[in-house]
Amino acid sequence: MTLNEHDRTIIMDSIRDIHDFPKPGIVFKDITTLLSDKNAYGVLMKHLHDRYSSYNLTHIAGIDARGFIFGAALAQMLGVGFIPIRKKGKLPYTTVSEKYSLEYGVDEVEVHIDAFSNVENPQVLLIDDLIATGGTAYAAASLINKVGATCVEACFIMGLDFLDGQKKLSEVVPVYTVIGVD
Amino acid sequence: MTLNEHDRTIIMDSIRDIHDFPKPGIVFKDITTLLSDKNAYGVLMKHLHDRYSSYNLTHIAGIDARGFIFGAALAQMLGVGFIPIRKKGKLPYTTVSEKYSLEYGVDEVEVHIDAFSNVENPQVLLIDDLIATGGTAYAAASLINKVGATCVEACFIMGLDFLDGQKKLSEVVPVYTVIGVD
Repeated sequence: MTLNEHDRTIIMDSIRDIHDFPKPGIVFKDITTLLSDKNAYGVLMKHLHDRYSSYNLTHIAGIDARGFIFGAALAQMLGVGFIPIRKKGKLPYTTVSEKYSLEYGVDEVEVHIDAFSNVENPQVLLIDDLIATGGTAYAAASLINKVGATCVEACFIMGLDFLDGQKKLSEVVPVYTVIGVD
Repeated sequence: MTLNEHDRTIIMDSIRDIHDFPKPGIVFKDITTLLSDKNAYGVLMKHLHDRYSSYNLTHIAGIDARGFIFGAALAQMLGVGFIPIRKKGKLPYTTVSEKYSLEYGVDEVEVHIDAFSNVENPQVLLIDDLIATGGTAYAAASLINKVGATCVEACFIMGLDFLDGQKKLSEVVPVYTVIGVD
């Protein structure tokens, strides 16, 4: 199930372009205007609920920090658990971590080692607001598998179609992007 | 409306104590075990929904990053907008900011200057996972008022009763804490 044109227009119209953030030449997709609009936010979350209600998920994993917003709301709508995947040093218990490359240097994400251990055969949807080069999402999907769960799909509200992040990530996990951005 | 004893036990039992995090002598309240437990997470969110459904809120504002988890889910349940209050430098558009004191040094939170401008007379619930000394929440409540909205209540999943954060904050906004921690 993908988004219909009517709902796509509502969502697209609620996202704001910010030029030169975080640095010159970048057009940043600002989803705060989507979230503050109860109508657009509701349309988006209903679409995600409708898509994933038949997946028999046990958990949603959201990537720090905008992935928390969509992930926690969806988990509550589906009646499943929510797992935060965080930047290094933020989670209090024993973690498993995964490094990934940035344009300059490396970064690292973590998940609790027992994050999914409260159910047998955990089936997890990974979610974040946007996929660009996909480095963070690739590391997050690896983490989910490392701690004994199955990452059944990776979902993004927006995907930058001019980068190859979605293609690269789809080699290890199915990828669903609500809205592609040229 | 406050939490009944049955639901309080379910929620308390799902929160994990982590000793010596983030530094020796601190007992950290780990809410990731609450979130991964669909039953406890559902009980908590239903309580928040029941409490706030009569408040005629227009927005929920959540504090970066654990406040996003509870705030975005509650906003969706209530059918209102969600506004992120973030650490300095994370929001892409023009912001208003507020400094607050930490044990050592200062930190700063921000909100978009037009965050609540999509409705008239915005009525906002501020939410975070925990209130300790209350410095961040005090700054966040000030920000909400600064950009022309009314902060009608500040809500925390847990409050550290041995600190005076709740008392101090309640001088400027009503405070509701789901669970007090000794």
